[in-house]
Amino acid sequence: MALSAYEKLHSRQRDVSLLGSTAEVLGWDQETCLPDAGVAWRAEQLAFLQGQKHRLATAPEVADWLSEAEAGPTSANPVEATNLRWWRRHYERAVRLPVDLVEEFTRATALAQSVWAHARKDSDFSLFQPHLEKLVELTRQRADAWGWEVCRYDALLEGYEPGARSAELSRLFSELAPQISALVTPAREHSKRWPAETLAGEYPIAAQQAFNREIAEAVGFDFTAGRIDTATHPFCTALGPQDVRLTTRYNKKDFTTSLFGVLHEAGHGLYDQGLDGMEWGQPAGSSLSLGIHESQSRLWENHVGGSVVFWEKWHARAAHYFPHLALLTPAALAGAVARVEPSFIRVEADQVTYDLHIILRFEIEQALVEGNLAVRDVPGYWNKRFETLLGLTVPDDRRGCLQDVHWSFGLFGYFPTYTLGNLNAAQLMAGARADVPHLEVALAAGHYAPLLGWLRENVHSLGQRLMPQELMLHATGETTQIRYHLEHLRSKFAA
Amino acid sequence: MALSAYEKLHSRQRDVSLLGSTAEVLGWDQETCLPDAGVAWRAEQLAFLQGQKHRLATAPEVADWLSEAEAGPTSANPVEATNLRWWRRHYERAVRLPVDLVEEFTRATALAQSVWAHARKDSDFSLFQPHLEKLVELTRQRADAWGWEVCRYDALLEGYEPGARSAELSRLFSELAPQISALVTPAREHSKRWPAETLAGEYPIAAQQAFNREIAEAVGFDFTAGRIDTATHPFCTALGPQDVRLTTRYNKKDFTTSLFGVLHEAGHGLYDQGLDGMEWGQPAGSSLSLGIHESQSRLWENHVGGSVVFWEKWHARAAHYFPHLALLTPAALAGAVARVEPSFIRVEADQVTYDLHIILRFEIEQALVEGNLAVRDVPGYWNKRFETLLGLTVPDDRRGCLQDVHWSFGLFGYFPTYTLGNLNAAQLMAGARADVPHLEVALAAGHYAPLLGWLRENVHSLGQRLMPQELMLHATGETTQIRYHLEHLRSKFAA
Repeated sequence: MALSAYEKLHSRQRDVSLLGSTAEVLGWDQETCLPDAGVAWRAEQLAFLQGQKHRLATAPEVADWLSEAEAGPTSANPVEATNLRWWRRHYERAVRLPVDLVEEFTRATALAQSVWAHARKDSDFSLFQPHLEKLVELTRQRADAWGWEVCRYDALLEGYEPGARSAELSRLFSELAPQISALVTPAREHSKRWPAETLAGEYPIAAQQAFNREIAEAVGFDFTAGRIDTATHPFCTALGPQDVRLTTRYNKKDFTTSLFGVLHEAGHGLYDQGLDGMEWGQPAGSSLSLGIHESQSRLWENHVGGSVVFWEKWHARAAHYFPHLALLTPAALAGAVARVEPSFIRVEADQVTYDLHIILRFEIEQALVEGNLAVRDVPGYWNKRFETLLGLTVPDDRRGCLQDVHWSFGLFGYFPTYTLGNLNAAQLMAGARADVPHLEVALAAGHYAPLLGWLRENVHSLGQRLMPQELMLHATGETTQIRYHLEHLRSKFAA
Repeated sequence: MALSAYEKLHSRQRDVSLLGSTAEVLGWDQETCLPDAGVAWRAEQLAFLQGQKHRLATAPEVADWLSEAEAGPTSANPVEATNLRWWRRHYERAVRLPVDLVEEFTRATALAQSVWAHARKDSDFSLFQPHLEKLVELTRQRADAWGWEVCRYDALLEGYEPGARSAELSRLFSELAPQISALVTPAREHSKRWPAETLAGEYPIAAQQAFNREIAEAVGFDFTAGRIDTATHPFCTALGPQDVRLTTRYNKKDFTTSLFGVLHEAGHGLYDQGLDGMEWGQPAGSSLSLGIHESQSRLWENHVGGSVVFWEKWHARAAHYFPHLALLTPAALAGAVARVEPSFIRVEADQVTYDLHIILRFEIEQALVEGNLAVRDVPGYWNKRFETLLGLTVPDDRRGCLQDVHWSFGLFGYFPTYTLGNLNAAQLMAGARADVPHLEVALAAGHYAPLLGWLRENVHSLGQRLMPQELMLHATGETTQIRYHLEHLRSKFAA
């Protein structure tokens, strides 16, 4: 029996997903297991798989199948309609990039990554500058190839947060920044009640692992279809519909690094485990955007794990694993794990100041891509603006504009999704509180299924059926707003 | 500049190796890390990769390139000559199998594997019988498709041990069997000096891991390009030219399982690490045959690790990790780790009786494939012959003809390479002793570089330049003989 155009596209996307998820296995292995000397061959394997994947996704027959499938009547089946819509978007985006540009960009990022690592180590921006100039230029070319209407940065955002626009993000972030800045001083004052030494002590890694696993299971992470490993830069990756892997890192003097790492990545993992397994790898069974994905990690990390009720529930288990914690009240534990203190490094930033780090990067990226800032002026701009936003003088570029890996990978337009994630997390949490009867009682009892169920229904199971802002509207009655996040921060840190 | 036909073939083989080594990563992950529920998608990924690999290897242009390259003058470069010769062999073997038969065989083995697992568990041969019948029939068809001259089994051997022939193996094994059988009683007597309880005690896993690693490093395994993990069925796999992974398993009451597992797999790993990295994945940079590969694992496991001088050297370190071993003499340690006691399970068999297990399987496989034994008669044949060879009455098929996974994977012709490995190991060890000045002194001092150097030069670095028996002749002056192995067993167990 001949396959329909839709079925051919579905089968092709399945092959693309098999290759893509295979590349994810190789990537996971590289971060957790790969011997040092194995890196060169691994890069060859990954380049080959990506090439094969691109070839399959952009083959001429795909265009024919798309036209044929689109010429038919619109499917009443939302899964089919979703898949067809996104296959078209992905195809258009993929074929618009000339092969020369793809290859030049790949080579430039490979080179930039190793130079960036040296430049950061030596805190020497001049080393990285020519590479960043090249990447910005190639990024502008990519954006122009993809096409844009109002501004070039929109074409980049589209790759991470479909439908997001620079103008709207600028509006949100410019309202957010001063209100967060105003919170920093009261939040620091608030945190003084639990000085940094409150949690001082020894935290054996095996005990941390056991505690983390217990909590990950409690929030609903399925270990028959997932695992936790150790990596320098924690991440979550889905290697298949029933194979979701979290990573975290351990500090023997501080259990919060690994625990909140696990809660954050478990938030991502719960999203991946909640996707429609029958359509896994197809748009209808894929996560929607980085801003929605990050909302899930932030929700479990900050709104669940950072709450006083969470520590009222878990205080006894924490003291079981780390006996000296028995001396602290649950409130002190909750306060001490969420101290606010402005600092230079984004990945170590507290909940209050985190978005200021993002807003700074967003401004710089926009200005670079639109041609309003020269790469050589990035350190100066960074340091001046950092002082305004966070009140600290950046001592060197290692702790300034060289700290993040993203730009060396050519990732422009990625940073703002972190703050979108924070905003969405607070708003979704408020939505769940409004919708789920007795949610507070359940959370206080350590019963997380009602919350997870709401997220499954309103976020995870939808895959890419709605656009990100449609999903926020559907789940919470509003597109992304700043006020839920601000209310959360105020109630927690300035009450 | 246009590529030559040779260069095109080299590039194609590189792509095939990139896919093949990617499948190895997925396989390694499946045995060491994969969550239970992830198995189904993993099978899809592997099937897809194998399909892609087969397509690339058998594409019509490969035949054109081969003809063009072969039409030119024979290369004086041994690497090029080796590659071209083997590319032709691999191509012919791959294209001779009709696609229908490949697919039917794949489906039949997938089905047979799960049925076999149940049949073994319940010790019920009747469950497995129809599947084994199907596999034997398909195996006969495969052999006929590949082609053979003297007997059908030769076509199967060719896939694991190029150039090996049933008649020659039958001759070797029929001389070997009675001489080994005659050794069993004296070896058992010899082993009574060190009863099974000699090593009784606790062996913490962390201590086993540290001891194993120390020994693996001492024999020359490079941990910057490799690692050791845990797996139910230990194996060694090369995921790239600088990425060789060993696995072992742990028994808290017995350190020898994991240690000799590591020594065995490290022997395989040293071979893989000693291949020509520039030609990795090409015939000139690939291991030669299973019988040569197994010779490397057996050499390090039995001839090095099983020797008295080894335990004279490592006794103190063993006692450091496992203090109660300080009470034993090095000779007692060496004796206790190599006790001889006939038993039913091949993978637990001692050095003396091991080959009897193999010879039994070889006889049965040959008879099945040549049509001289019906599948339904396998249990009866097995049990009768087992009693003759090993003097034990098989209590059930679980401990008899259902114990090994190989046939359920359709692996016929694989078993005899284990005994070839034992024979080759003893012969290569004798060759090294004859060639390397003061080898015994070096081994006694725990200085393994001279032995490894000889193996690197005479085995590892040659890749597939010679055929297996040519390599044995080149390295030791003789093709594979039984007498070195018998001399080793006699000197150790019947002296």
